[in-house]
Amino acid sequence: MDYIEILGLTAALFTTVANIPQAVKVIKTRSTKSLSAASYTILFIGLTLWTVYGISRNDLPVLLGNVIAAALCGIILGVKLWCKYVSGEKEESA
Amino acid sequence: MDYIEILGLTAALFTTVANIPQAVKVIKTRSTKSLSAASYTILFIGLTLWTVYGISRNDLPVLLGNVIAAALCGIILGVKLWCKYVSGEKEESA
Repeated sequence: MDYIEILGLTAALFTTVANIPQAVKVIKTRSTKSLSAASYTILFIGLTLWTVYGISRNDLPVLLGNVIAAALCGIILGVKLWCKYVSGEKEESA
Repeated sequence: MDYIEILGLTAALFTTVANIPQAVKVIKTRSTKSLSAASYTILFIGLTLWTVYGISRNDLPVLLGNVIAAALCGIILGVKLWCKYVSGEKEESA
């Protein structure tokens, strides 16, 4: 394994686990006012497409990295939509 | 260009532009209480590593997609740190 592959795997690890602190924070605080539902919806679709891409290419790192990131992103999006439409959290005004 | 390459480029487009609505929201509202500084720091490092990976591999889509996403993520992280340490925004408590 050369240094470029190590670089790619390290990058994949960072962008996969990046959503963990945000998922923990929204679950603990139930506050999502500053979060953009549009951003997390687009991100969720993108990560799902990357997962399908990983399956199509038989590329395990791409598949694993993105399916975990998509799951975390799905949790954040779920809590955001629950706060916005179920518990009636007010959005931040400009 | 086969359908798998189109799938990959579409996924890259989604995960690149995903941060635009969030960047616009934090700039307009100056509210970042619900955002996790740890998440955006880890994401910024990861996207920067992916950019270096794209340069090392001479892979333009990986380079372009990630340098744009890193710039957007950097803006969000900058506003978050400014709100937290300069303008004294209180964090959400659990």
